[in-house]
Amino acid sequence: MQYVKIKDSIVEQIETGMLAPRQKLPAERKLAESFNTTRVTLREALSILEADGRIYREDRRGWFISPMPLRYNLTQSQQFSNMAVEQNRTPQTVLLLAKATLANKFASQLLELPPFSDVFHIDRIRYLEERPVAFVTHYIRPEQCPNLLQYDLEGSLTDILREQFQIENQKTRYRISSSALFGETAQALRATAGTPAMVIERVNYNQHGELVDCAIEYWRHDAISIESFT
Amino acid sequence: MQYVKIKDSIVEQIETGMLAPRQKLPAERKLAESFNTTRVTLREALSILEADGRIYREDRRGWFISPMPLRYNLTQSQQFSNMAVEQNRTPQTVLLLAKATLANKFASQLLELPPFSDVFHIDRIRYLEERPVAFVTHYIRPEQCPNLLQYDLEGSLTDILREQFQIENQKTRYRISSSALFGETAQALRATAGTPAMVIERVNYNQHGELVDCAIEYWRHDAISIESFT
Repeated sequence: MQYVKIKDSIVEQIETGMLAPRQKLPAERKLAESFNTTRVTLREALSILEADGRIYREDRRGWFISPMPLRYNLTQSQQFSNMAVEQNRTPQTVLLLAKATLANKFASQLLELPPFSDVFHIDRIRYLEERPVAFVTHYIRPEQCPNLLQYDLEGSLTDILREQFQIENQKTRYRISSSALFGETAQALRATAGTPAMVIERVNYNQHGELVDCAIEYWRHDAISIESFT
Repeated sequence: MQYVKIKDSIVEQIETGMLAPRQKLPAERKLAESFNTTRVTLREALSILEADGRIYREDRRGWFISPMPLRYNLTQSQQFSNMAVEQNRTPQTVLLLAKATLANKFASQLLELPPFSDVFHIDRIRYLEERPVAFVTHYIRPEQCPNLLQYDLEGSLTDILREQFQIENQKTRYRISSSALFGETAQALRATAGTPAMVIERVNYNQHGELVDCAIEYWRHDAISIESFT
């Protein structure tokens, strides 16, 4: 089948280094011409490459070659920026929103709170080499860290909780699923609606076994590789 | 936005039990009529519900309400059928292929073998309540279990390895990514090309720390919820 040949040819160009990470592919019209094929067939090849995490699309900008995914190790709970630096990546975190609010249904469930309890709600974007790769929503129970929102929330939350409030992250419970990006989440990650996403839900407990906070991370699926050992 | 209302209305019907797991949705044309909307808007709503794992599509048969996902716990390595039975599900495994062959590039990498070494290649489909939910490819190093292919391969491989060859599964290394179903994998799971998938790669080690086998599991993403603790 022709789309398999096109896909294999692009994979080969990636593996031999002719196409470098973050490089932009030519426009679809030009690519179709150079493979002497139709846009329909070309798009079949591109959608398999996207599913395999080999390429990604930025809204209105086109297709790009995916860099290596970040290895996200569930066995050793680690902060995003440490994880990135250890893997020779350049992390950045940008704060979108930080407010005290009433817990919605989802936050109440994860934090085991009665509906309409007070929570802190923080939204942040994670970047690697200036590419937005994850949209993270945190919900935090306020009783243990009443003035949390005064601190610099573009740094590590774990560090603030430990240094300012003596809260150690002792245990984490993870749930992993796959989904797609839509609406403001898609927009913040420069993705078109429907782009595949990995979703990591984390619930963190302190040194006394008490629930402290949770996070819902929407990752562009090509940017992450989740690992675990038993 | 209209598609959000349609989506919320279907979610509500699922949560109140008006739409039951495995129930078929009316045809898209009828659904669009009953919501007094266009097929384009209806499909936006359906694609979000699919991404959220609320509904799934069977090729040429239409849309269905997703049952609860199987909880797949990485912390305690467990066999598929035990996991399913413990969660009151009805598991079944069907053998598609079992042969001795030469390792392809991918199998060589995972099993740390030189290219074109001998391996056993086994393909199986996992079912829950008669719905095909996962396409699993196993590659096994033959030296520790030379006549493996003589046994009933629709049962537990772990059990055969332990009972017939004294191989204990001591440690497992996991890699999780998200992808999509295409070709024979899609077909075997009755999925249309491009259906979202969760991919679990497992590499198993024996009681001496030696590599024994690996598996690549392509799950329909709505059928599984991966969990882990630290």
